[in-house]
Amino acid sequence: MPLILSLICELAEYEKLAHEVCATEEQLRETLFGERSVAEVVIASLDAQPAGFAVFFPNYSTFLGRPGLYLEDLFVRPEARGFGLGRLLIEYLARLAVDRGWGRLEWRVLDWNQPSIDFYKKLGAEPLDDWTVFRVTGEALHKLAR
Amino acid sequence: MPLILSLICELAEYEKLAHEVCATEEQLRETLFGERSVAEVVIASLDAQPAGFAVFFPNYSTFLGRPGLYLEDLFVRPEARGFGLGRLLIEYLARLAVDRGWGRLEWRVLDWNQPSIDFYKKLGAEPLDDWTVFRVTGEALHKLAR
Repeated sequence: MPLILSLICELAEYEKLAHEVCATEEQLRETLFGERSVAEVVIASLDAQPAGFAVFFPNYSTFLGRPGLYLEDLFVRPEARGFGLGRLLIEYLARLAVDRGWGRLEWRVLDWNQPSIDFYKKLGAEPLDDWTVFRVTGEALHKLAR
Repeated sequence: MPLILSLICELAEYEKLAHEVCATEEQLRETLFGERSVAEVVIASLDAQPAGFAVFFPNYSTFLGRPGLYLEDLFVRPEARGFGLGRLLIEYLARLAVDRGWGRLEWRVLDWNQPSIDFYKKLGAEPLDDWTVFRVTGEALHKLAR
């Protein structure tokens, strides 16, 4: 758990979103490894040292009538870059999706992250340029719930 | 099942994406109501007639360390619009998210769908303008998996 939380925080720092992280080890243990776990984690190693990770869960497409694999987090530590670990992690998830009969692999990328965008396009991924994600959270969510 | 499949197809037609629908009743039964169901459906009625629906599933935020509610489909039949069913459905889902301890409510909207965008902003939702969704599917997914 300390490793996973550390990787989440390192990713958040890279994304300039460190202020948004409020997960605790306790929460991660319950939601990733508890009885009602909702997501899975895979760790990449380099020279027997943890070097990166991916967090993913099934999403669902009504059009396809079956699940897809949604990649929530993908991160390779700066000192471990250039060895193809990012590609290995995505290939691993693609194989997992195909093996499970899931029809898609999807994720989000920050628009300023051009290195990642170039990398994803080389893998055969297509940007859904005509869609925008909307979010309700915090006080707005509670207000809507009332 | 015929009702749910019909609503999915009506939504796809509205989105000009009818060519993308390849779900069958059999698939929907398994993925929505089977032992390993991955999504939930709520139906809205008007004068005891089915008038709209929402399909949703839990997504996951590593930053929050807990699930969110992802709204995959929201649709109100044209003849049932103007009675506030769309708002009722979203308020229902917001309450469900809060009751379950989920931290967010998220969905995607097509950029040309200005009526929906205006509606969502009025509800307190914020567009994640600096993120783009990437997708690998079909032959590209199989190639990546190899």
